[in-house]
Amino acid sequence: MAKTATDWATEFREYVRKMLHFEEAINLMYWDLRTGAPKMGVELRSEAIGTLAAEVFAMQTSPQMEEYLNVLSEPGTFETLDPVTQATLREVKKEFDRNRKIPADRFKAYVVLTSQAESVWEEAKHTADFALFRPYLEKIVAMKIEFIGYWGYEGNKYNTLLDQYEPGLTVEQLDGIFGPLREETVKLVQAIVDSGIRPDLRHFRGHYPKDKQRALSLELLRNMGYDFAAGRLDETEHPFQTTINRYDARVTTKFLEDDVRSAISSTVHEGGHALYEQGVSPDLIGTPLCTGASMGIHESQSRFYENMIGRSREYWESHLPVVRRFFPEFEEVSVDEFYRAMNDVSPSLIRIEADEVTYNLHIMIRYELEKALINETLRVADLPGVWREKMREYLGVEPDSDATGVLQDVHWSGGDFGYFPSYSLGNIYAAQFRHQLAKEIPDYMEQVRRGEMLEIKRWLNEKIHRFGKTLTPGEIVRQVTGEDINAKYLIDYLHEKFDPLYHLA
Amino acid sequence: MAKTATDWATEFREYVRKMLHFEEAINLMYWDLRTGAPKMGVELRSEAIGTLAAEVFAMQTSPQMEEYLNVLSEPGTFETLDPVTQATLREVKKEFDRNRKIPADRFKAYVVLTSQAESVWEEAKHTADFALFRPYLEKIVAMKIEFIGYWGYEGNKYNTLLDQYEPGLTVEQLDGIFGPLREETVKLVQAIVDSGIRPDLRHFRGHYPKDKQRALSLELLRNMGYDFAAGRLDETEHPFQTTINRYDARVTTKFLEDDVRSAISSTVHEGGHALYEQGVSPDLIGTPLCTGASMGIHESQSRFYENMIGRSREYWESHLPVVRRFFPEFEEVSVDEFYRAMNDVSPSLIRIEADEVTYNLHIMIRYELEKALINETLRVADLPGVWREKMREYLGVEPDSDATGVLQDVHWSGGDFGYFPSYSLGNIYAAQFRHQLAKEIPDYMEQVRRGEMLEIKRWLNEKIHRFGKTLTPGEIVRQVTGEDINAKYLIDYLHEKFDPLYHLA
Repeated sequence: MAKTATDWATEFREYVRKMLHFEEAINLMYWDLRTGAPKMGVELRSEAIGTLAAEVFAMQTSPQMEEYLNVLSEPGTFETLDPVTQATLREVKKEFDRNRKIPADRFKAYVVLTSQAESVWEEAKHTADFALFRPYLEKIVAMKIEFIGYWGYEGNKYNTLLDQYEPGLTVEQLDGIFGPLREETVKLVQAIVDSGIRPDLRHFRGHYPKDKQRALSLELLRNMGYDFAAGRLDETEHPFQTTINRYDARVTTKFLEDDVRSAISSTVHEGGHALYEQGVSPDLIGTPLCTGASMGIHESQSRFYENMIGRSREYWESHLPVVRRFFPEFEEVSVDEFYRAMNDVSPSLIRIEADEVTYNLHIMIRYELEKALINETLRVADLPGVWREKMREYLGVEPDSDATGVLQDVHWSGGDFGYFPSYSLGNIYAAQFRHQLAKEIPDYMEQVRRGEMLEIKRWLNEKIHRFGKTLTPGEIVRQVTGEDINAKYLIDYLHEKFDPLYHLA
Repeated sequence: MAKTATDWATEFREYVRKMLHFEEAINLMYWDLRTGAPKMGVELRSEAIGTLAAEVFAMQTSPQMEEYLNVLSEPGTFETLDPVTQATLREVKKEFDRNRKIPADRFKAYVVLTSQAESVWEEAKHTADFALFRPYLEKIVAMKIEFIGYWGYEGNKYNTLLDQYEPGLTVEQLDGIFGPLREETVKLVQAIVDSGIRPDLRHFRGHYPKDKQRALSLELLRNMGYDFAAGRLDETEHPFQTTINRYDARVTTKFLEDDVRSAISSTVHEGGHALYEQGVSPDLIGTPLCTGASMGIHESQSRFYENMIGRSREYWESHLPVVRRFFPEFEEVSVDEFYRAMNDVSPSLIRIEADEVTYNLHIMIRYELEKALINETLRVADLPGVWREKMREYLGVEPDSDATGVLQDVHWSGGDFGYFPSYSLGNIYAAQFRHQLAKEIPDYMEQVRRGEMLEIKRWLNEKIHRFGKTLTPGEIVRQVTGEDINAKYLIDYLHEKFDPLYHLA
């Protein structure tokens, strides 16, 4: 008896589900490596991850997968599938095409190159020696351009890379968004610097034991609505959120014993990511749609919580008392002082340490450089110089070494071009969502002032989270706000918040 | 060009290594489930483990594997292989035969039955209702007998089950070993009960916070020579040791806040297992030989450390000061009192709470019942009654409910027949190894008295650990001690230790 479309669809869904089981194992193995796996076991662990990753790749690109995609994509069949299977098919096919279009030997060469490049980068950063990293980066850029040849592109070569992280977004759009944001931000930063105002940090230079910071972090997450029955908090060198499965969305944070603010921000940031993952519809379990819509939309959730909630005056009205329970020394500090300390704006060299205002300028520099490299209007050799120029132009500071300049981020060594813009897109989307939230729940910041955070979470669940990856970023933004991506709301928000903080006109 | 024997061997080793990479993932997934994975994620996690386990099973029994085994086992080929590949082949073939001899549909039925039985057992134990569990246990026993039919057996049907945990051991041997041990132990227990002596536990009923117990446990492990660069300690409901890879041998323990002795014993016990795993020769990495020789030999290491070292007077001379650093209240307790409190012997109902002397009697009861069930000389329906009889006969106590009687252990619900004897074999082997250790390092207990534990570890590394699973239990015992398994040394040890403790003639 011939297989029906339903039979094919069931088999296909089962196949995908199994593939995701391997990914669950891989994600747990990485989580474990980053949260406390014994050092000596790392090498063998990496080998084991390699085997599982190869299995996933083999499943993604197998003749079996090809058959599923061909049969189920046929006109007359595709239309009969349920919407989740249709969306799964689209998502899986995208990955299939991306992987199968690269000749196997070239893909292998790329994997070898980037894994070498990562350790060379580490060494180069350590010794502040760009010349060491340069030949590797040149090869990576050349290979990225070669791969774009296989993948194809429309308009700008960089579009293909952007699309891998932010489906549908183009250079043309992004230039139109980033342009005005850059101009406004440069002006705002200059005004803040010129104001001469800096928060009083005398009371923030104490000793804050880890175990108390951990207890505080747990409470901040609980208050946000994070569900510990479906997640956990651990300590790590670089905070991250990882989803092991739909009911296991983990958060990590970092405790600096001499600055309590760091763990607070990291925890609330990663908590924002986790709320997204905990809010995806369970109907999407077992599909690649059971996660955020894109890197940018994901980042909008973390940055909304970190910056727009977690660095707001209202949040500190309800949460300073919480901090004081663990650290009574903050009895001496007023809400206003705490709020100001959480919003210290100052141009600096390192992206990951940058504040809410200057951060986007760090991103734009990387975006402009990546775009130029991929379009071959900039040579790798000229990167360090152009980096310094742009830092001076946008931020008014300049690294005295490439270690704190062009070598500071790991991303390029792993071939991750097109990723950086997501961070700023997150800020832009967040401001748009916030604007809409204020329209629909006008007293939401009053709720925050009272320490009530659950209606906000429910709104995000309802409007954004539950759809997972069934919608594109563009579709989500339009569905939630009624318009396309627009940086105006971020600019407005920054002025609304920082003008009074820094006594600007 | 035809493949050479070396080509085949290389391919085979690569194939096995990959299979073990999947097992590394599975082991980590279980470890995570038992040490803190969020509750709601457990169901999806189990599904993912199922997929990976099925993959391992498929690899173990694949036509590809069959071809490797056939080609490399050929006379003229096998002899040309290096010893590690030969031993790997033997080990893998054993597993292959065990799995392939069962018809696929029967194996599947068995998996379904045992997974149902485990939850029924839980319910039956909870409600003390053996009748609930009885039909499941009857089916499991029947299937075990059916499987023995497929596997074949020599002498006694139970031999085939024993061999799965303790390769080469037979019922005939075991009866000869357990017989005198039972007789001597029953007498010794009776004499201890008759002595009327019980340790003074007044000073052991305090409050011992978890974090201090954790710090103490870490120190006990470090003192044993446990390498934290290749392992870690976590908290769990039921302590266990698990090996993620050769350089990642993890230990868990349980902290009872009202009894400090529990975590001490568990930690030292699991630490003994971990020292074995950390001592296997790195030459065996990537093979199934990179672990202990058998369940029994593994248990000999944990019980040697837990009982023969960790409950010795000499150990407490050096380690009571360590305990006092964390719990100053033990300043009031003398070494002698602490030593006695660690060696409280008293017949009781529950195996896992039993002391060093009575423990083996719990095992023998289970062994005798299993043997009778498999040889069909005992019906499942009669189990509870026979259980009570034997408890009364050997230990002089009797459960008032099946919950603390025949239903107390999970093992049978999972089909684990043949496993229980390993625990007592561990005690027997441990006493034999200890006897040999005393001959070769006569002052080893003096070293323990001074808190020096590393020469003992090095001796075990050299004599036992490094061989991993390349030798059978019988080969190891003969190689280390010059004779076969012999319970005399355990009997001698028990008298040597407990006669003076309980003022016996």
